[in-house]
Amino acid sequence: MSGGTVFGVGLGPGDQDLMSVRADRLIRNARHVAFFRKAGRPGQARQIVNGMMPETAIEFPMEYPVTTEISLTDPRYNEILSQFYTDCTAHLRSLTDAGEDVVVLCEGDPFFYGSFMHLYTRLSGDIDVQVVPAITGMSGAWTATGAPITWGDDILTVLMGTLDEDTLASNMANADALVVMKIGRNIDKVRRALKTAGKYDDAYLIEYATMPNQTVQKLADAEEKVTPYFSIIVVHGQGRRP
Amino acid sequence: MSGGTVFGVGLGPGDQDLMSVRADRLIRNARHVAFFRKAGRPGQARQIVNGMMPETAIEFPMEYPVTTEISLTDPRYNEILSQFYTDCTAHLRSLTDAGEDVVVLCEGDPFFYGSFMHLYTRLSGDIDVQVVPAITGMSGAWTATGAPITWGDDILTVLMGTLDEDTLASNMANADALVVMKIGRNIDKVRRALKTAGKYDDAYLIEYATMPNQTVQKLADAEEKVTPYFSIIVVHGQGRRP
Repeated sequence: MSGGTVFGVGLGPGDQDLMSVRADRLIRNARHVAFFRKAGRPGQARQIVNGMMPETAIEFPMEYPVTTEISLTDPRYNEILSQFYTDCTAHLRSLTDAGEDVVVLCEGDPFFYGSFMHLYTRLSGDIDVQVVPAITGMSGAWTATGAPITWGDDILTVLMGTLDEDTLASNMANADALVVMKIGRNIDKVRRALKTAGKYDDAYLIEYATMPNQTVQKLADAEEKVTPYFSIIVVHGQGRRP
Repeated sequence: MSGGTVFGVGLGPGDQDLMSVRADRLIRNARHVAFFRKAGRPGQARQIVNGMMPETAIEFPMEYPVTTEISLTDPRYNEILSQFYTDCTAHLRSLTDAGEDVVVLCEGDPFFYGSFMHLYTRLSGDIDVQVVPAITGMSGAWTATGAPITWGDDILTVLMGTLDEDTLASNMANADALVVMKIGRNIDKVRRALKTAGKYDDAYLIEYATMPNQTVQKLADAEEKVTPYFSIIVVHGQGRRP
């Protein structure tokens, strides 16, 4: 391979101080910085690095053509997003072909439920792509609760709120420790599933973990609405401890 | 609260460059550094920070009185370990009472299956304890495989090799993406459970993720023995992707 490198840089849960030393160095020395955002928004990943990039860095916002306007089950959803990712990679390729390195900002850990993976699978093989792992959003969330998530032989299960209610409830019942992400408009379904699984009263809701506006509360005490981004539900394991 | 602070500092998977900026700063400025190790060994956590601590730092190795010599199910195991953790916290308390801060080195993320939690529960409440989350060992492992661990709505389950074979197999069958840790002497049982769950051929074994001696191979191609520490098995999710 010749040409530049695409760095998929995990930013962690949001606090700049919790980025890895490698991520910090790559961002502070970047010439090209790409990031996803919803059209018309500043973008969460971009906001996390406020003040870190060189003034000369060239930014490449990649704006999702759809987010929740089209259902995930509509075949057009996949077509539109697939074309979008292909267009994004064409731009990144044009930069690396010219010998330039590009930093792609990724919230959380790039290989853990992230959008960067869709670029990665289209780029790796013929372009040098390096992935910098990061502290996951869920790690930030359980740390915020002030209690360990897993002990001894605890089974940890990570669930997306987008799953159907029966799948959620049966997996919740089976796990010792739980993390639920992608909550947003799925909050009522997630609450019902937690009740079915007998774990509702032990669930915590963490919003904006590690950020200045961080909140931690029992889910049962929380308002009906939760913030669409950066909301994570945690149920702590209670495993073996001397 | 008055006196010093105990910092439970997550070191991440092993590469110093993957520590958080905060962990890096705390370690490079530490006056007191505590860490667990097996008696007669240098200690994995201590080795990760080689060359980082000030020469004037005072080290406090906390040596496990037992590791695998006594069965987990033997009541003496819990008694001996409980006394050990109480003794460790007494020393940490004597330092914070004198106004000193102490950095406790933690492999991986402190609240994710770590020994620090046993100190944390004994110290927090009357001593200022701050936990610095970190990149988990499993994040280092899946990044090493060069493939994303979870996509779309994938269910991720994290299992300890110390669980019984039926529990392992049923949870493996039920998950989309899998991580198995604490493998060591449980490797044969873990292999059988993966076969029962139909996931053996998709499993990867990662040893020493992010470290200079990192290896990644299909589990089916691996030798019968695996390294007791730093071995993680990963099965990637195959969820929705445009």
